[in-house]
Amino acid sequence: MKLPSKVVICEVGLRDGLQNEPKILNVSEKLKLAEGLIEAGFKVIELGSFMNPKAVPQMADTDELFRLIGNFEGVELRALVANKKGVERAIDCGCKKIKLNVSASKQHNLANINKTPGETVAGFAENVDLALKNGLEVSGSISMPFGSPWEGLIPIDDVEEIVEAYIGVGIKEISLSDAAGVATPKQVYDMCCSMQKKYPHVKWWLHFHNTRGMAMANILAAMEAGITNFDTALGGTGGCPFVPGAAGNISSEDVVHMMDEMGIATGIDLLKLIELSRNLLALLGHAGDSYIQKAGRSKDLYK
Amino acid sequence: MKLPSKVVICEVGLRDGLQNEPKILNVSEKLKLAEGLIEAGFKVIELGSFMNPKAVPQMADTDELFRLIGNFEGVELRALVANKKGVERAIDCGCKKIKLNVSASKQHNLANINKTPGETVAGFAENVDLALKNGLEVSGSISMPFGSPWEGLIPIDDVEEIVEAYIGVGIKEISLSDAAGVATPKQVYDMCCSMQKKYPHVKWWLHFHNTRGMAMANILAAMEAGITNFDTALGGTGGCPFVPGAAGNISSEDVVHMMDEMGIATGIDLLKLIELSRNLLALLGHAGDSYIQKAGRSKDLYK
Repeated sequence: MKLPSKVVICEVGLRDGLQNEPKILNVSEKLKLAEGLIEAGFKVIELGSFMNPKAVPQMADTDELFRLIGNFEGVELRALVANKKGVERAIDCGCKKIKLNVSASKQHNLANINKTPGETVAGFAENVDLALKNGLEVSGSISMPFGSPWEGLIPIDDVEEIVEAYIGVGIKEISLSDAAGVATPKQVYDMCCSMQKKYPHVKWWLHFHNTRGMAMANILAAMEAGITNFDTALGGTGGCPFVPGAAGNISSEDVVHMMDEMGIATGIDLLKLIELSRNLLALLGHAGDSYIQKAGRSKDLYK
Repeated sequence: MKLPSKVVICEVGLRDGLQNEPKILNVSEKLKLAEGLIEAGFKVIELGSFMNPKAVPQMADTDELFRLIGNFEGVELRALVANKKGVERAIDCGCKKIKLNVSASKQHNLANINKTPGETVAGFAENVDLALKNGLEVSGSISMPFGSPWEGLIPIDDVEEIVEAYIGVGIKEISLSDAAGVATPKQVYDMCCSMQKKYPHVKWWLHFHNTRGMAMANILAAMEAGITNFDTALGGTGGCPFVPGAAGNISSEDVVHMMDEMGIATGIDLLKLIELSRNLLALLGHAGDSYIQKAGRSKDLYK
């Protein structure tokens, strides 16, 4: 079993975790959490999103959070952006890295905006140019490339069309996001092998929700295919507004624990991470989908 | 990614699941569940154990359950046995397959019965002979071969010593049981490859608890190493009395769902299994550690 010696974990709890929570954290709570994550060793953090505050009130203060946190040497603080207004907000508040997103579902795209996913991405060109001109880095995300509630399995040709559209607008860092929680390890392995072979210059991220208990096996399969960048969220927070019964992201502490136990370096202090996650869940007022919160580390078991 | 085309799942909920439950099911509830499992397609079921009824009251009626259920053509109904008394009870009630168990922890064995695990297994000889003479099949289980609360990681040489002791008393079917929930995919892959290479005539079973969220990835890793026999439990029921914070077995419906989605045949009707699990959890009066109970199948998502 060939596994990487190190991986990069992007903490997405502040965005994907919090955006579905009924309780809205205030900006100082978010700032404290973000600073804690940096102290725990995270080098990539998704801090929030620049969406319509009426639609996603949990993320309304992302601008303020970026202004307060400032720059940390060697730490990438990224945000999700949906449109030109979002790019402008990112520029204004000092955000240096944005992520665009498109659903891989043709039906979803056609129904919502009467465009195919590839056409949607081609339409990002102006936003990408504006961001690049202002010194921001831009990445792209493809949600539900492994299957969507609308059409089930997405043909890999359709996913490739989206990848090529992203490359066409100048984006070379792409995230495959199983927001529906339907990906299987075999499918993940095959898609990761195929994508890396066909688009070797793209930097790939994998993002798994643990809706059907397959996320950890999917991370293993992706690592076996050579992937080393993963999104995870503190306490397994999160969900997906479009997917009934969706569970949260795979829990950061569960993933970092597995990596630690297999000798795969993450650069993250697991004990600090567990504490941050515990504090966040206490703030949110509910339990998380996190095994390590309940059971502790394997190491803690050994007397 | 090389995976098997089919696997055999042994449902252990009736034994490993129920033995830790405060609520004790009666024999007709157990019988109905067992018959439901057979109808759902299970070909191997761990029906109970022959332990001291004072120590494990949940399993006190295992004899009666075997008498009531009778024989099903092509279905193996097995039970866990600890000693000679247990073998005698198995013979008396018509149980045709027993499983012995030893902990891989030297410290645990020495502290409890002043023998090494290998010596404990060698001491099973009389029980094995008695069972074989009466036409029963006998298998052996090694609990915590991947790590124990007493000494942490168990050296593979120590595990091999136990395997050889089992082979020495005439047992050729062995289960590796991560009751402590500490196994990692890399470790599972390596141990499964090594054991199969060294002992090619042994029939191997793998048994994972999902205590630290790694069980599904461990099943994937074991399949990649060529293992095709797995224990799982309805609704993720179970625990381990010796392991603080232990979660249950990996949920049968989660595993069967993943196999279904990857085209790996199990012979089990997932919808029937989900219903049986839901009924069991209702009887027990608590939620299970089962993702599919909460989210449904991937197929259910597709409209």
